[in-house]
Amino acid sequence: MNSLELAEALVKRSEVAEGDKKLVLLVMDGVGDIRHPSNDYRTPLEDADCPNLDDLAARSAVGRIIPVDYGITPGSGPAHLGLFGYDPRVVEIGRGVMEVVGIGMELEEGDVAARANFCTIQDDTVVDRRAGRPETRVSAEKVRLLQEKVGRIEDVEIIMQAGMGHRFGVIFRGPGLMGGVNDTDPHENGEPIHEARAEEQGQEKTARIINEFQRRALEVLEGGDPINGMVMRGFSGRPGIAALQERFGLRCGAIATYPMYRGLASLVGMGLVETGKAVEDEFQACLDHWDDYDYFFIHVKPTDEAGEDGDHGKKVEAIEATDEKLPMLLDAGPEVLAVTGDHSTPCSMKLHSWHPVPLLLHSPRCGADCAEGFTEAACNTGGLGIFRAMYLLPLMLANAGLLDKYGA
Amino acid sequence: MNSLELAEALVKRSEVAEGDKKLVLLVMDGVGDIRHPSNDYRTPLEDADCPNLDDLAARSAVGRIIPVDYGITPGSGPAHLGLFGYDPRVVEIGRGVMEVVGIGMELEEGDVAARANFCTIQDDTVVDRRAGRPETRVSAEKVRLLQEKVGRIEDVEIIMQAGMGHRFGVIFRGPGLMGGVNDTDPHENGEPIHEARAEEQGQEKTARIINEFQRRALEVLEGGDPINGMVMRGFSGRPGIAALQERFGLRCGAIATYPMYRGLASLVGMGLVETGKAVEDEFQACLDHWDDYDYFFIHVKPTDEAGEDGDHGKKVEAIEATDEKLPMLLDAGPEVLAVTGDHSTPCSMKLHSWHPVPLLLHSPRCGADCAEGFTEAACNTGGLGIFRAMYLLPLMLANAGLLDKYGA
Repeated sequence: MNSLELAEALVKRSEVAEGDKKLVLLVMDGVGDIRHPSNDYRTPLEDADCPNLDDLAARSAVGRIIPVDYGITPGSGPAHLGLFGYDPRVVEIGRGVMEVVGIGMELEEGDVAARANFCTIQDDTVVDRRAGRPETRVSAEKVRLLQEKVGRIEDVEIIMQAGMGHRFGVIFRGPGLMGGVNDTDPHENGEPIHEARAEEQGQEKTARIINEFQRRALEVLEGGDPINGMVMRGFSGRPGIAALQERFGLRCGAIATYPMYRGLASLVGMGLVETGKAVEDEFQACLDHWDDYDYFFIHVKPTDEAGEDGDHGKKVEAIEATDEKLPMLLDAGPEVLAVTGDHSTPCSMKLHSWHPVPLLLHSPRCGADCAEGFTEAACNTGGLGIFRAMYLLPLMLANAGLLDKYGA
Repeated sequence: MNSLELAEALVKRSEVAEGDKKLVLLVMDGVGDIRHPSNDYRTPLEDADCPNLDDLAARSAVGRIIPVDYGITPGSGPAHLGLFGYDPRVVEIGRGVMEVVGIGMELEEGDVAARANFCTIQDDTVVDRRAGRPETRVSAEKVRLLQEKVGRIEDVEIIMQAGMGHRFGVIFRGPGLMGGVNDTDPHENGEPIHEARAEEQGQEKTARIINEFQRRALEVLEGGDPINGMVMRGFSGRPGIAALQERFGLRCGAIATYPMYRGLASLVGMGLVETGKAVEDEFQACLDHWDDYDYFFIHVKPTDEAGEDGDHGKKVEAIEATDEKLPMLLDAGPEVLAVTGDHSTPCSMKLHSWHPVPLLLHSPRCGADCAEGFTEAACNTGGLGIFRAMYLLPLMLANAGLLDKYGA
């Protein structure tokens, strides 16, 4: 029995079902940072004025989480899977699935999703895989055309939606489809479009539909400039994982403003709560649905955006804005509140990174590390230690008193 | 996918191949120590005057590494395998292989190595497995005699070299040999020499050659006093592991003065750099070969020797001597520098131990834990935490910017 199976076996389902203990996971995306000469060796959490977080940290258990593994920089998919109690080294979300959930398309069981690019073709060769990086509105027009002309092949419905620039999402919906078929995207300019092949048993129909869609899409796009073709990659279905409700009995609700995080939450079976964009709106949405769920995932995006922009000051502000509204959540009296990030996005790197993320875990049973504040360095010395993100959910359940004793 | 496979899958091979980012692993053998009444509760790292290491530690990420596992005291083999990014709980190096690489013999693919003892035999019984612990020069004479008389059996070349005292190394080189045959060494006095048996398919020839070599060696040694026999154990071949270059694309060079560490490095495919014995010579050898490799393993031995002697003062001096020359490496501008040990060798124990080893990891992306110095206690509070040695290589690659993001 691995660590997560152990927690699943020990969860007190009848007590969870009573629904009077609320677990809240507050994710400040990319909140972790590193001390660096460019920021005078101070992180945004160290520079932010956060009376509520600091006060809470002093009365909480603190530690740091490793999103996926030592040295591994996660995309948003694996990073959130870990926070939700899945081992992201085992559960993989295909590129196609990430693309379609990222633009807010609804993926059903049995669907196969792909990430598609508009491209430029000459003499049967892809000469520009991004068709000169068209504007989104130009691509959207081509997507509408494709949808109108090639919306169905055999008994398979084909659903498309524009993404950013040259990208769009494609969902194949119909009986007998399978992910894992090879890309038609050659991945390099100067190569011909690849044919989809059924390399595993059961993929024949999927490959046939893909090839036919690819052929007819090229007919529809023919003569365009610079967009006269499209290629697809990452054919994949929903990851075959049990929902959190099935595993732990928890009714889970997600409060997030960006389609990608809503999509990720839906992949693990969370309900999607409508919310406004500000932190205050998100917290209010949580309170408005307090009785509907046992576990709330609240996703705050601006910390990551500031990190990706390399904007230390903006990251400080994003943290302070979250801190200011924190009493809204505290006053509701969750049994367990975990505050952390899905990964670090150091301003000095302007990228996601592998660095462990500070974590604060508050409950009536959490103990207190009397941390001086909610910072990376203070969390280094906490009683939770430095551990993989996938162990956070068992810890939250334990802190809610919802895990039975193991053995006599 | 396990943690190390994940890193292998994500390494940016084309960027590694550019060769402009150098990774340096500086191993101060046995540097870790423990506070103990006998040293007034101060470790050699705490007593050493190390301005360079202390300054670097303040601007680095720090932590501690567990060589193999909780409570496990490693030999040099497993300890270094961990540092080199192999799981030493999985990869085993046979005793025979350790013996022959430890005395500087070159082991080829397909060879079978054994560790041999000269012994004293009476009435077909081994009465002293160490033949009264002869001096090395006495054994060396006997080895020369054996080499002259029994250098080949069938198509198998037999290569011998004197070790320390009663020990010597034997390599069987020829087609169709396999390790894993049982020892001829009875492991206890008062027992007869064992016959080698083929217990797995394919070992028949190896067992036959070993038995014939054992028989003829006894003939050659007959009548000697106290050496009139020899026994062998640990028949083993090169561990079946992929070289670091194959796994990560890194050209690796080893700078070490002792045969064992050079041998260990050669087992994972490292090139062996010629060097003088002093730390300064080793660092200069690294600089002289700066363009030849991407990853340098530099092994400094005196810290371990002092620990095994229980000589706190000598260990302090060995640390200070390394610290003094550190700017030679820093000035070369490695992208990543890791300073650590392969294990602890506490002076109060005069032995290798399981205690975690302090680690300092410096790069443009490392962050800074603002540690007060490079000591065990300061490293306890660092953002790297306390983790298994095998994760160091993925962390070094991440710090060099040489690992791709995992998932979207």
